[in-house]
Amino acid sequence: MAEKKRIVSGMRPTGALHLGNLHGALANWINMQDDYDCFFFIADWHALTSDYEDPGNIAGFSQDMMTDWLGAGLNPEKSTLFVQSAVKAHAELFLLLAMITPVPWLERNPTYKEQIEALNNKDLSTFGFLGYPVLQAADIIIYRANGVPVGIDQAPHIEITREIARRFNYLYGKVFPEPETILTETSKILGLDRRKMSKSYNNAIFLSESPEDIRKKTAQMITDPQRIRKTDPGDPDVCNVFTFHRFYSPAGTVAEIDAACRKAEIGCVECKKKMADYLVGYLAPIREKIQYFRQNRGMVLDIIENGNKKASIEAETTMARVREALKI
Amino acid sequence: MAEKKRIVSGMRPTGALHLGNLHGALANWINMQDDYDCFFFIADWHALTSDYEDPGNIAGFSQDMMTDWLGAGLNPEKSTLFVQSAVKAHAELFLLLAMITPVPWLERNPTYKEQIEALNNKDLSTFGFLGYPVLQAADIIIYRANGVPVGIDQAPHIEITREIARRFNYLYGKVFPEPETILTETSKILGLDRRKMSKSYNNAIFLSESPEDIRKKTAQMITDPQRIRKTDPGDPDVCNVFTFHRFYSPAGTVAEIDAACRKAEIGCVECKKKMADYLVGYLAPIREKIQYFRQNRGMVLDIIENGNKKASIEAETTMARVREALKI
Repeated sequence: MAEKKRIVSGMRPTGALHLGNLHGALANWINMQDDYDCFFFIADWHALTSDYEDPGNIAGFSQDMMTDWLGAGLNPEKSTLFVQSAVKAHAELFLLLAMITPVPWLERNPTYKEQIEALNNKDLSTFGFLGYPVLQAADIIIYRANGVPVGIDQAPHIEITREIARRFNYLYGKVFPEPETILTETSKILGLDRRKMSKSYNNAIFLSESPEDIRKKTAQMITDPQRIRKTDPGDPDVCNVFTFHRFYSPAGTVAEIDAACRKAEIGCVECKKKMADYLVGYLAPIREKIQYFRQNRGMVLDIIENGNKKASIEAETTMARVREALKI
Repeated sequence: MAEKKRIVSGMRPTGALHLGNLHGALANWINMQDDYDCFFFIADWHALTSDYEDPGNIAGFSQDMMTDWLGAGLNPEKSTLFVQSAVKAHAELFLLLAMITPVPWLERNPTYKEQIEALNNKDLSTFGFLGYPVLQAADIIIYRANGVPVGIDQAPHIEITREIARRFNYLYGKVFPEPETILTETSKILGLDRRKMSKSYNNAIFLSESPEDIRKKTAQMITDPQRIRKTDPGDPDVCNVFTFHRFYSPAGTVAEIDAACRKAEIGCVECKKKMADYLVGYLAPIREKIQYFRQNRGMVLDIIENGNKKASIEAETTMARVREALKI
């Protein structure tokens, strides 16, 4: 049996996770656990690249996120689940890679200027923000990853990671595999108001949301804006609730709703109630597991600690080779 | 009794030390040991900022340098003597300080562009080179230093360190004292060829130089270039050998040489021999101690290990406060 390929991926600690997070990356991770040797980490140091002015309670957010990871189906028996800042070797490798990374590689990073513009309410002209692809490279290659599962928008960063790994190997001898980009399909689900689902927009349904709150939030969702009266035929293609149906309702129901909406045979209130039923059912086992782990915080802390240890051992193995290559 | 103020300073590992290193910084450090709580480190990670393409044997250089430090009079009973890369927390703090340091602070660093121009045979457009004042800040404030002994040329770096410490304290609460610049007089001694004394110029006299080699090298020194014949009067003010006399010969001898040279009563060969005698005498106890430590490499390694441990404990104390302030 061939050895499993190793993949590494991380997520910034935003606290409780919502459906957008689940379908954006987490669902892919959960699916990859059997086929790959997975290292998934909470990127708490990365959280400081854009939120250094008000980092909030990063440690608390990290624990909450790990709780939700476990609830959604990440399995510490299968994958190494850990917190970046607990594996100090990431910082050491970041420092060493900094020495060999040309500034122009970072400046030409297509998302760098985009992000500076997008987040123009924050002062992002920091040395750390400029260098976050270097930290990302360290995060990945410190586990000698073969691949990184990413959405198409993240692909340029992995290209920089590959370039940095190649440069290190060229200067000091081959230590790192060049990790491949494993493009993953991310299904986008929008927020209640049709903007990107985001905690800060207050338009999110959380994995741990109670059935009552799911129903309340669903009731507020924007449907087809052209459908003013219940007797007007609707267009499911532009209806956010219908997208939710496609995620959570059985195929037969989706087809029925599609037809009935177009003929004005079902009103939005009823349609939303049906969707909410299926969404509640979909989240029930996840929510139950999250509740369990919330009540057993010690288990979550143990899982984090064990993951940190496993990751540290692996990172230290790499760092021993790095230091030897550098004769430092 | 008031507690001693703490100072921190470092030196890049260049291997065996020469007279230029001794009078440049080391002599000051040795003098400060009784009055301050001193942390002196070998800046091996810094060596990579400019020499990443061919770092040489940094670990070997570090051991050689520590041997010479001990020979010259740094005392592990008085001062904490350690190797930067052994205290991983420097890298962690470097990463955290990177997040709050504006790139323009680094770009306007007066020595940044100077160095890029001075070392134009090396490609220094790296992220690490741009950020070396951030690493330097981490090196210093991780020990909550009250002061940094520096020559006037290094003063701007300490200014950046102070600014970074202030910014951290402003954002997250007071953790760091702002270290003061302790301007030290550095006596400049030139190399055999009157250029800056430097290993790479092949114009240096090493602390561990044998008496024979000291005499041989002294014989090659350039004196007053206007004094062609022994019968020509010389000008000690422009003679490099005379500068050496001022460092190593007793005051009476210096005055005699000064007068005799101006009257052509002493030739350069004899003058050099006299100087070599005093220099040999000056270096004899240092050389003896260096020889001793070279023959007892294990002792040097123990001293380094103990110093690393002492420094790590102190650095970890600071990092606990840093992590608490950042809630990470």
